[in-house]
Amino acid sequence: MIPTESTMPELRKDPIMGRWVIIAPDRLTRPQNVRDDLAAPDPPAFDPFLEGHEEATTPEILAYREPHTQPNGPGWRVRVVPNKFPALRVEGQLTNRGDGMYDVMSGIGAHEVIIECPHHETNMSRLSVDNIREVLWAYRDRLIDLKKDRRLVHGLIFKNKGALAGASLDHSHSQLIVNPIIPITIQEEMDGAEAYFRYRGRSIFADMVQQELATGKRVVIDSGNFLVFCPFASRFPFETWIVPKNHTSHFENISRQGVDEMGVVLKRTLQKLELALDDPPYNYVIHTAPFDVQEVRHYCWHLEIFPRLTRVAGFEWGSGFYINPVTPEHAAAFLRDTDVE
Amino acid sequence: MIPTESTMPELRKDPIMGRWVIIAPDRLTRPQNVRDDLAAPDPPAFDPFLEGHEEATTPEILAYREPHTQPNGPGWRVRVVPNKFPALRVEGQLTNRGDGMYDVMSGIGAHEVIIECPHHETNMSRLSVDNIREVLWAYRDRLIDLKKDRRLVHGLIFKNKGALAGASLDHSHSQLIVNPIIPITIQEEMDGAEAYFRYRGRSIFADMVQQELATGKRVVIDSGNFLVFCPFASRFPFETWIVPKNHTSHFENISRQGVDEMGVVLKRTLQKLELALDDPPYNYVIHTAPFDVQEVRHYCWHLEIFPRLTRVAGFEWGSGFYINPVTPEHAAAFLRDTDVE
Repeated sequence: MIPTESTMPELRKDPIMGRWVIIAPDRLTRPQNVRDDLAAPDPPAFDPFLEGHEEATTPEILAYREPHTQPNGPGWRVRVVPNKFPALRVEGQLTNRGDGMYDVMSGIGAHEVIIECPHHETNMSRLSVDNIREVLWAYRDRLIDLKKDRRLVHGLIFKNKGALAGASLDHSHSQLIVNPIIPITIQEEMDGAEAYFRYRGRSIFADMVQQELATGKRVVIDSGNFLVFCPFASRFPFETWIVPKNHTSHFENISRQGVDEMGVVLKRTLQKLELALDDPPYNYVIHTAPFDVQEVRHYCWHLEIFPRLTRVAGFEWGSGFYINPVTPEHAAAFLRDTDVE
Repeated sequence: MIPTESTMPELRKDPIMGRWVIIAPDRLTRPQNVRDDLAAPDPPAFDPFLEGHEEATTPEILAYREPHTQPNGPGWRVRVVPNKFPALRVEGQLTNRGDGMYDVMSGIGAHEVIIECPHHETNMSRLSVDNIREVLWAYRDRLIDLKKDRRLVHGLIFKNKGALAGASLDHSHSQLIVNPIIPITIQEEMDGAEAYFRYRGRSIFADMVQQELATGKRVVIDSGNFLVFCPFASRFPFETWIVPKNHTSHFENISRQGVDEMGVVLKRTLQKLELALDDPPYNYVIHTAPFDVQEVRHYCWHLEIFPRLTRVAGFEWGSGFYINPVTPEHAAAFLRDTDVE
């Protein structure tokens, strides 16, 4: 009933909003077709991300392995492979053309999957702190590598946890999409933060961390170098951000020490959300500055987590307008009181 | 397990993006709590929107009735009531205050439900053309009335069809939220359209209609005064827009003739989507210019329909970044070929 197509992905610009969209028709070759029910499917019986099933994925780009183990064989702890159904592709030339009043760019980029553990585990929060640290380190390694490709300007790291949050496999994994354009939300954040800096001479992220620490009412975890809080204008119930206190614009410039601490913080945050909200589906996204921008004083990378709790009123997509039935103060207090020690 | 709250709704501004969010904690008194499963619930056995059940809703604001029938009794064709769980409230004073670096506004506004028919019908497409015309006319009537309240600046009309698109009742209905601020998507559209007009001296909507008619490949219906098409940079599979060819910035200035024709066009569009996509959940939103803006040559109201087909990868909310697995050319051809006569 649904048409199938097989052409190269392309990036198209919305002429009114200036937002780019990936039109990636060959993702239709996925087992689920477009009219896939939003209802949670059973996870497939076969787990292609399991240790020993390496032949079921595309060949690995990166793996942290035990000594004397072979690429694409067992013995890895974290493994990165190209997405089997990529939204963007590395091969080809980056072209930019007009189509009457419209703008089109070839769908050049990278779409990778970070397999977070060799055993079958659905919840990142149940991985060891060391394991989570290696996942974060893999994010960094891949960004640093892909940054060398001068055609690409921004790397978006994200996680879909649970079928209702968009995951098609339940083995814990994240994804990386590296783009020849800057996603509009990142651009708008950069612009907003820059305007604030011009006006006040201070970083909006630093001011936010300071005010959150001063009032304390939206703080979930204060770990020393990271602040976990529910933002003042949360769009979703239990929306939670992790922001480094030592201001850095690019996630990939994180230190080994930073990753060590963030591993603990991320695990505790996810544990709290899962315990408080009964293992909800969720998404997280790392917002980081574009590749071709130097370290800037006005922008700070951070991680945004969105538990998928409310029945989604999709008109938000059509209006940018959000209704949140839980105050962030209430959500933060609830998460603070959720003891995961 | 989930905290309950009961305070007045407020509007909060995201300090980085400038986006306003409604924090409406008393919507938690809804039967579904926050940790409501996203899975489709059974519709309740009792339909409060049915003719004869008028006492089950809040008292009506507007109803198109048969002669000699009483308000809040049977005999209506289309009926508008305040939302029982409003995101915004008409009562109170519009205040605007700072909270440190943050901005807050009292949650003043209107949140109404347009009950589209007296009998139990889940699909707007199955209503008669005359019935749909009266629904559109009710949208117009309510906007014109609410516009008189000088505290309010923008009216957002939208429909959630199906539980998976956010509807909590299956009786066909739409909603209207009238705001003391302009939703960011509308503001960005206005800004983008104005920049285009300054640069080219033409409306981007008129240019878009012209190019779509010229190529024809994304056109679904060309009705004379309305163009139905799948936009060039569609974010979602089968995203479909209805745009008037006679350029008007405010929906509420639509003529009786315009409503007559749009009733036919909207019915046929929804019929096509439902037949082609096997009765999908969907949302639609009417984008219209703010109340306090005069008729402008650069902006044109339009209706955007989003069938909810793909498993939602919520990271879009965190990035503004969309991946669409169906080209709009393919979607439009498929809808054109779907015969609903």
